[in-house]
Amino acid sequence: MEPRIHVLTLAVDDLERALAFYREGLGLSSPGVVGTDYQGSQDDAAGAVVMFQLEGGPILALFPRGELAKDANVAVGAPKAGEFSIGQIVENKNDVDRVLEQAEAAGGTVTDPPHDRPWGVYSGYFRDPDGHLWEIIWDSHHAS
Amino acid sequence: MEPRIHVLTLAVDDLERALAFYREGLGLSSPGVVGTDYQGSQDDAAGAVVMFQLEGGPILALFPRGELAKDANVAVGAPKAGEFSIGQIVENKNDVDRVLEQAEAAGGTVTDPPHDRPWGVYSGYFRDPDGHLWEIIWDSHHAS
Repeated sequence: MEPRIHVLTLAVDDLERALAFYREGLGLSSPGVVGTDYQGSQDDAAGAVVMFQLEGGPILALFPRGELAKDANVAVGAPKAGEFSIGQIVENKNDVDRVLEQAEAAGGTVTDPPHDRPWGVYSGYFRDPDGHLWEIIWDSHHAS
Repeated sequence: MEPRIHVLTLAVDDLERALAFYREGLGLSSPGVVGTDYQGSQDDAAGAVVMFQLEGGPILALFPRGELAKDANVAVGAPKAGEFSIGQIVENKNDVDRVLEQAEAAGGTVTDPPHDRPWGVYSGYFRDPDGHLWEIIWDSHHAS
């Protein structure tokens, strides 16, 4: 397998709510819900999806939990946290604080307020409205 | 928030097993387990982690589930699927089949064998040994 990731798709309960959190709340840019031509069926996933083009090429996608389960042919379950985290590195400690405040204002939940960690990182975590974990990181090893 | 993702951290039950799956099984490159200097405690995460440098800059990290839970201050739970998927786009349909076969040979589980999907995509899904979903994709819209 090549060492590449092109798309990270987050399962969400409510596509419009998730779109509002990431677009209006956090300021990411997206044309909104696309793919609504594909209605799906009991066994086939519907196509409605939200995509955010990220810098450097990858796409962050939002897809209803039940549709992802059908598309991947896996059982759907209640959301939970701790399966994974998405990390974003920022320029300084103030930016860590600022993004965490922005996420909270947008309806996210700060699980771990920003603090220094023993490996030279200052970071904090928030969950989006579906429980997905983001870590916002200032890394002393990459500081200028 | 800036539209960037730098790290995707997957929670795993067994760091060595997960390393073997991704490095020996799928052929991704990694120096192995690092960060073992930080022992952690009941409340603080230990530092041992596996990182794979991906093309284009981002890092795929593997971190024990219990340590991620401590680091993010969230409850740890049993693994489940359907929370998210990681997508990789390949050059042609044969490559989709090939990567799925490679994943199965490495100890992964194919949940949905490769087939055409109505939105112009030929893809299949596999789970890694911890249940994380990967979709390997040939996209007719990006075909040359």
